Amino acid sequence: MSVGGSPQPFAAASALAPGDRVAVIAPASGFDHVSFHAGLALIAARYRPEYGAGIFARQRYLAGDDARRFTELHGALSDPGIRAVFCARGGYGATRLLPRLLGSEPPAQDKLLVGFSDITALHLWLQRHGRISVHGPVLTQLARLGGDTLERLFRTLEVAEPPAPLTGTTSYVGGRAEGRLIGGNLSVLTRVIGTPYMPPLEGAILLLEDQGERPYRLDRMWTHLRLAGVFERISGLVLGEFTHCEEPGADYSSAEVLRELAQASGVPCAAGFPIGHGARNEPVPLGVPVRLDADDCSLHFLTAAVRS
Amino acid sequence: MSVGGSPQPFAAASALAPGDRVAVIAPASGFDHVSFHAGLALIAARYRPEYGAGIFARQRYLAGDDARRFTELHGALSDPGIRAVFCARGGYGATRLLPRLLGSEPPAQDKLLVGFSDITALHLWLQRHGRISVHGPVLTQLARLGGDTLERLFRTLEVAEPPAPLTGTTSYVGGRAEGRLIGGNLSVLTRVIGTPYMPPLEGAILLLEDQGERPYRLDRMWTHLRLAGVFERISGLVLGEFTHCEEPGADYSSAEVLRELAQASGVPCAAGFPIGHGARNEPVPLGVPVRLDADDCSLHFLTAAVRS
Repeated sequence: MSVGGSPQPFAAASALAPGDRVAVIAPASGFDHVSFHAGLALIAARYRPEYGAGIFARQRYLAGDDARRFTELHGALSDPGIRAVFCARGGYGATRLLPRLLGSEPPAQDKLLVGFSDITALHLWLQRHGRISVHGPVLTQLARLGGDTLERLFRTLEVAEPPAPLTGTTSYVGGRAEGRLIGGNLSVLTRVIGTPYMPPLEGAILLLEDQGERPYRLDRMWTHLRLAGVFERISGLVLGEFTHCEEPGADYSSAEVLRELAQASGVPCAAGFPIGHGARNEPVPLGVPVRLDADDCSLHFLTAAVRS
Repeated sequence: MSVGGSPQPFAAASALAPGDRVAVIAPASGFDHVSFHAGLALIAARYRPEYGAGIFARQRYLAGDDARRFTELHGALSDPGIRAVFCARGGYGATRLLPRLLGSEPPAQDKLLVGFSDITALHLWLQRHGRISVHGPVLTQLARLGGDTLERLFRTLEVAEPPAPLTGTTSYVGGRAEGRLIGGNLSVLTRVIGTPYMPPLEGAILLLEDQGERPYRLDRMWTHLRLAGVFERISGLVLGEFTHCEEPGADYSSAEVLRELAQASGVPCAAGFPIGHGARNEPVPLGVPVRLDADDCSLHFLTAAVRS
């Protein structure tokens, strides 16, 4: 069992300010140029984004080969003048970079990585090393999410106060729990089980969301977490959106399947948080302590992602 | 890392004879009745198959609830008069039964389990406990596979001689290797990584096949094996068929992706063996020592699945 490890202190990065240098990288799949530039414009209205010409490289389902994507990622994380790193898109490819990251400590917590979906692989690696990062929109998603989400993202990066609480829609298993928020995409998280890249999950509040996975596949992934003993370690479950996860023609829903799986897990669990691949994707800091109230479906952040 | 464990001696079951009692079970998904009865007729022409009425139960994507499927599985494996256990279909659901099997030693090697795809979860559990089992057709698949496959299946169960060698089509990484044949479905095998159900993989020849997984998903699963250190443990790779694994509209093939992944793994690897979800699904014993020649793409079985 490699789920687990020795917890390390999590230190917050210093707060960003308008005009700061930030990097844009593509560590996973290639992306649509129009939505890339639309998202870039929104970031550029606040910070000074930088990216290399190589970001437009393509190799099958990847934004260029592993060496290119790793060099870009490593360069952004290593540059002390870069205050945040925005991911262009998820898709697939970040897990392929993990072996190149092994053995090298991630840089000091002087910047925040922002992304979700496939970027979960990098978040897990960061939390494995005691870093805070931001589960939030990718660049190509920004323009369609609306100003409130963008505002929340900027506040998360710039204000040394706990972000505003979020509210889910449905209680699957009542109760309250406190712990560090860890996780992200279910497909990607479960691809790190049994590897040296999984952060300690003892006492964690586990965030899960996914897209395009049929109910039996959600079950299979959830069962993997169960077989690996994850539910005996964590203290609570926060479910984001599970979009396009229905079985065509079925007389059951993915929500029904998830509810049953959550109930068997036995830990407090609230669902329907506005996090994931749907119409909303509210940014949340990972690695920070949170309080989940699975009775009223609220998630409270106990510390900020940044320090003043 | 829970890939690994202490190897145990693998003992062969005694050979079946025509007229022997055999069980038919459905530990995973529900199935089509017409192909079930067509397969049953072929088994009944050789042995005396038995099944309970509960086998036709349905619960969403499962052939009845976990308790029903587990009771059926456990009953078939525990009955000393049953000489072989045939699975009706794969699909999904066998992994859900693994926690119920934990802690209980599997029965003495007095019978052989036959199946593939989702049944891989049960094969892994059997090999974890030093048992031989048969990666081969499920009942619903039998009627369309033809007489040669059925003949090979009966010979595998009845004749105390190594099965005839199989031949693949393509060498991905040349070389020779010997080891126990372990594995089956890539999706299912990788859902057992980091759990107590994975058999020791040290020195193994790993069999992999899959269906309906797009190339980036094959990559993601293969990368999971890599992140878990599997390629440092095994001695060779035997790839069966990867059916319906193409990306619509892509200018690359799943075979191209698998070849590249295999080459990066560094162990002898031959592909295109007639094993899996395609037009052929030749039965092969798991847990027995095999010799892979990845230059001429041959797989030789060094011992029989049964003793006389």
